[in-house]
Amino acid sequence: MGLLLTDIVDALGGSLEGAAPGLRIEGIAPLDSAGPAELSFLNNQRYQAQLAQSRAACVIVAPALRAQALERGAAIVTDEPYLYFARLTQLWARAQGQAAQPGIHPSAVVHPDAQVDASASIGPLCVVEQGAVIGAQTVLASRVSVGARCRIGARCIIHPGVVIGADGFGFAPHQGEWVKIAQLGAVRIGDDVEIGANTCIDRGALDDTVIEDGVKLDNLIQIAHNVHIGRHTAMAGCSAVAGSTHIGAHCQIAGAASIIGHLRIADHVHVSTNTVVTHSINRPGHYTGVFPMDDNAQWEKNAATLRQLYRLRERVKALEHLCKNTTPPRPQ
Amino acid sequence: MGLLLTDIVDALGGSLEGAAPGLRIEGIAPLDSAGPAELSFLNNQRYQAQLAQSRAACVIVAPALRAQALERGAAIVTDEPYLYFARLTQLWARAQGQAAQPGIHPSAVVHPDAQVDASASIGPLCVVEQGAVIGAQTVLASRVSVGARCRIGARCIIHPGVVIGADGFGFAPHQGEWVKIAQLGAVRIGDDVEIGANTCIDRGALDDTVIEDGVKLDNLIQIAHNVHIGRHTAMAGCSAVAGSTHIGAHCQIAGAASIIGHLRIADHVHVSTNTVVTHSINRPGHYTGVFPMDDNAQWEKNAATLRQLYRLRERVKALEHLCKNTTPPRPQ
Amino acid sequence: MGLLLTDIVDALGGSLEGAAPGLRIEGIAPLDSAGPAELSFLNNQRYQAQLAQSRAACVIVAPALRAQALERGAAIVTDEPYLYFARLTQLWARAQGQAAQPGIHPSAVVHPDAQVDASASIGPLCVVEQGAVIGAQTVLASRVSVGARCRIGARCIIHPGVVIGADGFGFAPHQGEWVKIAQLGAVRIGDDVEIGANTCIDRGALDDTVIEDGVKLDNLIQIAHNVHIGRHTAMAGCSAVAGSTHIGAHCQIAGAASIIGHLRIADHVHVSTNTVVTHSINRPGHYTGVFPMDDNAQWEKNAATLRQLYRLRERVKALEHLCKNTTPPRPQ
Repeated sequence: MGLLLTDIVDALGGSLEGAAPGLRIEGIAPLDSAGPAELSFLNNQRYQAQLAQSRAACVIVAPALRAQALERGAAIVTDEPYLYFARLTQLWARAQGQAAQPGIHPSAVVHPDAQVDASASIGPLCVVEQGAVIGAQTVLASRVSVGARCRIGARCIIHPGVVIGADGFGFAPHQGEWVKIAQLGAVRIGDDVEIGANTCIDRGALDDTVIEDGVKLDNLIQIAHNVHIGRHTAMAGCSAVAGSTHIGAHCQIAGAASIIGHLRIADHVHVSTNTVVTHSINRPGHYTGVFPMDDNAQWEKNAATLRQLYRLRERVKALEHLCKNTTPPRPQ
Repeated sequence: MGLLLTDIVDALGGSLEGAAPGLRIEGIAPLDSAGPAELSFLNNQRYQAQLAQSRAACVIVAPALRAQALERGAAIVTDEPYLYFARLTQLWARAQGQAAQPGIHPSAVVHPDAQVDASASIGPLCVVEQGAVIGAQTVLASRVSVGARCRIGARCIIHPGVVIGADGFGFAPHQGEWVKIAQLGAVRIGDDVEIGANTCIDRGALDDTVIEDGVKLDNLIQIAHNVHIGRHTAMAGCSAVAGSTHIGAHCQIAGAASIIGHLRIADHVHVSTNTVVTHSINRPGHYTGVFPMDDNAQWEKNAATLRQLYRLRERVKALEHLCKNTTPPRPQ
Repeated sequence: MGLLLTDIVDALGGSLEGAAPGLRIEGIAPLDSAGPAELSFLNNQRYQAQLAQSRAACVIVAPALRAQALERGAAIVTDEPYLYFARLTQLWARAQGQAAQPGIHPSAVVHPDAQVDASASIGPLCVVEQGAVIGAQTVLASRVSVGARCRIGARCIIHPGVVIGADGFGFAPHQGEWVKIAQLGAVRIGDDVEIGANTCIDRGALDDTVIEDGVKLDNLIQIAHNVHIGRHTAMAGCSAVAGSTHIGAHCQIAGAASIIGHLRIADHVHVSTNTVVTHSINRPGHYTGVFPMDDNAQWEKNAATLRQLYRLRERVKALEHLCKNTTPPRPQ
């Protein structure tokens, strides 16, 4: 249990200052709750005031806060404290033995014609179907389904309940009924992708659905058939993308946002929470469409007016016309 | 099959009146569809008109409706008919042998270092990981995943597909990519909590995600890392709470509502369906933010105007200015 | 691998013209990406310009485009090219051996008192509980849960992670806590229903939840207790229906739309994406309620104004009153 501060710095770099020799850390905690055997970090200048009061054994800080941090005790000085913290959590997890073990859990159902890299970890009660490919060091946590012919790259993390390669939602209408379009494509997932619990990525109708390298998807996300998500785009929980939409690289899609089908979203687009994207976005930027929350009684009055908004504009137009005609001549 | 009315009253209390001796009930049904061997209830005065027409063998009513109920047949008189009905459904389910049996289904994968109370029921194809704790009389239905070190209290009901303790969605940005923040916390769930199908509760980044006693979560809900939900709060299906938000006790969050991260919601707050909570709520009350539905053509006109709403306000302001200046002097 | 064009026409009908004898197709692809051994189709007149450029071996077209198609090569002429394409994908999937095999996968947990038709396919790690009924040729993909006494008709396709028959979300309030209403009903699903990955359909409280013949549900949909969905209605991903709502036949509910509880929706109603249906809909039509997305800065100005919309209307009303009184008499 725990790590020596010196071992942390040996592994992750940074400059350890003001620490007693042999100081051992027993946990990582936020500044305001860290105890005297815990390591903390200060990322945001806004929390600077918490620094002096923190009981943490040591604080990870940027060079600008070095002096202030040392006044209260030990510090690890590094250019990017938040990045350092991220790497520290990974080191900590490994030290606590929390890394997934390579191999296929005996309760998993892996088709003999699937290809699973020997360094991958297939957790309990996963299903990997015929022709699926799972890359090196990829982890399927538990109860993950990977459909036939779907491919997952290296170093991916797939959380419980994820469904990769269910049929896309495609039907031809015929005499008031729906005739199924068999979904003949698959899903292709790049390297270093993380997919949150119970998220669904459908297989393509003819071509594949594609998730590029470094994409991060949160829980309960819906990715429809033939969607393409560019490198290092991140999508938060409960967001959804309808069929054949192409999302660029380095986008951020906030929680419960929806993007309708057959659109193109440029790189570096940021969509706010619960926003519905109904047309293509050609330029980087931050886009929003959320009804502002209010006290229910206020909302009712505003919402009732909203239903007549077009008429309100017509009334304003009529007033403008009227006033123009009635404005007295300006003094010459 | 069935229960004697006298056995029901022996178990649940209330006063049975007007019933023939030995009357046996073969089902529970709403007033308007109950048959002559079924027990019904009248909770809402609005449905009082249905009472006279009901064919039910017996009706559960409040004292105020006793006389009216007895005119048509047997009645169980009790102060809280709806509560009585709830307890009756539980009695009925037990009588039909629908209660889960204690023990671990042989197809479940339970880590040898997990602690499962002997009275708990772990259903088929569940996964309980290392160090997890499952309390007395708690039921994991089927295909539930409980991650390492997560704790579930007593008398909880966890429905199929639930994922407790997947990683929270945390990354540090670095040169256009995302560096994973290993999620070192766990999930702590109190007693008497019910969690609906395919709902996800992520483990905390450093501290735990906490669900207090008596919380009820419906299906397909997303609870992000380090969220805290207070006692007896109920959340309906498809709602979502982003990271580190603290929801008070006795709140009601309606379906598909979203609460963004790092907020505080007071006790006794009611959030309407599909409302997006974007700032903390300090006072009990009812809060709403929903775009009113309309015929599509009407909506298009109003929505187009909404996109120019700020300009419309400016136009009104200009008119006000103009009219003030052009108003004729009032008669003296 | 592949199919002869003549075999396709023998199986599906249509008129094959301009094809070299023995022409074999090795894939199906969209017009713009099809290679010289692939079969394509032209459904929408909009894509007519792509026809001349397409490298496809053969194109499925309507009679009106026959001449134009034959100028570039082989064609299958049929009255409904998109329907033909749908049937072709099914033929293709069967020819590739992608059809599910009848029988119960050894890893599935099927209660001895469940009834599974011999022609049904129960995939890996599914759970079928006591008294459940699975009809002829129905496919449960993998990791599907079907609760006690729930019934699924013939020729249904149930994708991974689906939960049918979890408890509805019903509680009686009592002294600030929630008393569970045991859910005594079940779920009844008709024939030819398809249900997408991780979708949840709750059992009814007293009566059953009902999904009629031919209904198509996409992924991550929430169907609450006692909902009734009429024949051939289709619902797209992440949509949700709250308790006891009755949806008619032939409706289309777009993605992430919500319908609150205890409503009635007529037949042939189309609800737009992300629309919240808060009252019953008695007439066929197209209904919408979506906040229009905008550049974030624009949105902020409009949203701030929206919060004062009622007041803005009052200001317009005051101006109208003022202007009426100040309007100069018209020239006689």
